[in-house]
Amino acid sequence: MTGNTAAADATTFRKGNGRTDRAPYDLGTVLDIAVATFNERGYEATSISVLAERLGTSKSALYYHVSGKEELLQRALDRALGELEAVLEASGADDRRGNAADRLEFVLRGAVRVLVAELPYVTLLLRVRGNTDIERDALRRRREFDHRVSQLVEAAHAEGSLRADLDPGTTSRLLFGMINSIVEWYRPGGPMDADALADATVSVALDGLRAR
Amino acid sequence: MTGNTAAADATTFRKGNGRTDRAPYDLGTVLDIAVATFNERGYEATSISVLAERLGTSKSALYYHVSGKEELLQRALDRALGELEAVLEASGADDRRGNAADRLEFVLRGAVRVLVAELPYVTLLLRVRGNTDIERDALRRRREFDHRVSQLVEAAHAEGSLRADLDPGTTSRLLFGMINSIVEWYRPGGPMDADALADATVSVALDGLRAR
Repeated sequence: MTGNTAAADATTFRKGNGRTDRAPYDLGTVLDIAVATFNERGYEATSISVLAERLGTSKSALYYHVSGKEELLQRALDRALGELEAVLEASGADDRRGNAADRLEFVLRGAVRVLVAELPYVTLLLRVRGNTDIERDALRRRREFDHRVSQLVEAAHAEGSLRADLDPGTTSRLLFGMINSIVEWYRPGGPMDADALADATVSVALDGLRAR
Repeated sequence: MTGNTAAADATTFRKGNGRTDRAPYDLGTVLDIAVATFNERGYEATSISVLAERLGTSKSALYYHVSGKEELLQRALDRALGELEAVLEASGADDRRGNAADRLEFVLRGAVRVLVAELPYVTLLLRVRGNTDIERDALRRRREFDHRVSQLVEAAHAEGSLRADLDPGTTSRLLFGMINSIVEWYRPGGPMDADALADATVSVALDGLRAR
């Protein structure tokens, strides 16, 4: 088997099993590289061969981790959606107790933090257009998330916490537009960390820019 | 020449010259179809043949109007940018008199109206990634527009019209994010016209959602 890099890599990994942090790459690394490549080239234009090349490994070593690029896409979208859905769950958005405006503020702040923490994953999610079953399923979950945030905007509207002169549907869309734009221009490592960005975003959304 | 559709179409059009409104299609129609097709398929994937087919005409008839798809892209981007730049000019953004917050409000409202009136054209502009000289030139003009709006945000900040606790750079980006998102979800012909949408957007940006 000498000289067969593919087999050598896979063997190395198998040997390292049980202590995956020491392996030359693990599923997390594979996923990070896959997501970066999907975002750069587009999912359709990215093959398992390209990913193997980027990782400096072989296709067969990659197949040790995943069944194919479809699984990588599914895992990546699931990670972004799972984090966003967890924010909604944590907000107690499903029960009807408590102040809807406070829950909305919690969700907006949490969504900004997820965008920053999972920037490439959410970027991928926001570019999904529904060309495959995996993408259509992700779009369905994304619409469900948007719908639940919209319901929160409506509830805050109904309880009188939000201005009565603004339509909740338009308000929700403008809010998502502002928050989702963060993936286009925010780069981690600058002067503004995730918490400061979340504060600024929520503050603009709820209180506006005008000095009083 | 009988049976040569290309030549027949071109001849028909030449006969109609001088009364272009009566022609089966004019440059405006060609541009509308080109922009719609670029947005659907991507600019790279769209050929002059595809455009001719969509218009039910021939390539040679199209070349009567334009030198190629590059010219169509340039004209389309120039239209979107020209309309946006006209809003800045009309705001008096270049002179230093008057209230910067009022000028900013004028520009935001005007930009929303342009987005709605030129929806497919601005959509195309916002998708430009800089693969050709034409696209790079459009990106440069777009950055210049963004820069001048940011200067307006800074001036409004400096005069005390905008809240002192928000960073003008972040504020500008969140504003653009909210406004640019309109091309993703707004569809003309619904219950909300351009003026109502402009009012809602400016109102959310400047005064926030919270009831007082």
